[in-house]
Amino acid sequence: MKINENSALVILSGGQDSTTALFWAKEKFQEVETITFDYGQRHKRELGCAKKIAEIADVPNKLVSITSLSQLSDNAMVNETEIKENEETLLPTTFVPGRNLLFVTMAAAYAYEKRIPNLIIGVSQVDYSGYPDCREETMKSLEETINLGMEFPFKLHTPLIYKTKKETVLLAKKLGALEYLKYSHTCYKGKFPPCGECPACKLRTKGFEEAGIADPLLL
Amino acid sequence: MKINENSALVILSGGQDSTTALFWAKEKFQEVETITFDYGQRHKRELGCAKKIAEIADVPNKLVSITSLSQLSDNAMVNETEIKENEETLLPTTFVPGRNLLFVTMAAAYAYEKRIPNLIIGVSQVDYSGYPDCREETMKSLEETINLGMEFPFKLHTPLIYKTKKETVLLAKKLGALEYLKYSHTCYKGKFPPCGECPACKLRTKGFEEAGIADPLLL
Repeated sequence: MKINENSALVILSGGQDSTTALFWAKEKFQEVETITFDYGQRHKRELGCAKKIAEIADVPNKLVSITSLSQLSDNAMVNETEIKENEETLLPTTFVPGRNLLFVTMAAAYAYEKRIPNLIIGVSQVDYSGYPDCREETMKSLEETINLGMEFPFKLHTPLIYKTKKETVLLAKKLGALEYLKYSHTCYKGKFPPCGECPACKLRTKGFEEAGIADPLLL
Repeated sequence: MKINENSALVILSGGQDSTTALFWAKEKFQEVETITFDYGQRHKRELGCAKKIAEIADVPNKLVSITSLSQLSDNAMVNETEIKENEETLLPTTFVPGRNLLFVTMAAAYAYEKRIPNLIIGVSQVDYSGYPDCREETMKSLEETINLGMEFPFKLHTPLIYKTKKETVLLAKKLGALEYLKYSHTCYKGKFPPCGECPACKLRTKGFEEAGIADPLLL
């Protein structure tokens, strides 16, 4: 098989982390593409953000619809459930079971077709809101699964896995990606200007504050 | 979390193997449900078969649409590509990259929501047409990935993994599932009566012949 070792596919949600991961990939690989998933999220606004960011970063963006994910489970990301800790699972009600596993697997199916071996996802197990599918252990296991399941030498890169939000902001600055974060979306409630009160908004605000940088989204 | 150890979710395609796996599950677990995926397959007929089989087996059947899978890759399962060996990958052109990985991950997301720990898939690495996502090694890795990714004690059962088609036919007989195979669908071309010539039809015919049993579908 003709594999281009210098090509990469970035899972781009349109949020702060995946935007930063995109610019990390652009520095590291010659050919970069992006893939974005519409899973029926409440904050649909991020889909337009992903498109816009890909456009100005001059990389292709493939939009894939898996809205059936919202039929499978009941959570605050796809419906109006209150955003808090689930009393039974002790995970946030914003946890979408299987989300990152599905994203990476679908991205891998697309990358397989295009013979792209490098996959990039901007998850962090430091500021990860308690989602078990943002941990390095999960990503390592998933990398092995997609390699075995498609007989293809995928490498799953997680450049932000050990970074706090503050460190991610500083990395974005270093990569020259700060101005692009103006177009990123973070608010779980899908609001613009951001609500400033949901866990995602709070985490973003804290990261920029600790980095001593003004959030371009709010300028 | 309240987990019902005696509940199971079967991935039911409507084919011979998953129908047999369903009856295996019905013997082993008290509460059995099924899940079926519409991925834009050429042989759409199997979706109706799955529904019918679930009905007469008296188990719930959840139909999930992930037709975007057919946008991600180009293969003989979702389009009119000729069914043969792919000269570049050496895999059959009917290989849908990531298919079983996606099915199991989506089934797991649904099972998580219903607190069902047992997942059943009727793959076989003996008569597996060379699909890498039908091997035990892949399924073991996938089981670990979904456990880690959802922090849930899933057990992924593969009752047919070491069985030839002949042995699967004999198992169906033992389980009293033979008559249900009348409603199953196998033909890759989606034909009824089956074409008898595609690799799936040939494998089915061989299995019944070797078992010395008439295929109820053809009676």
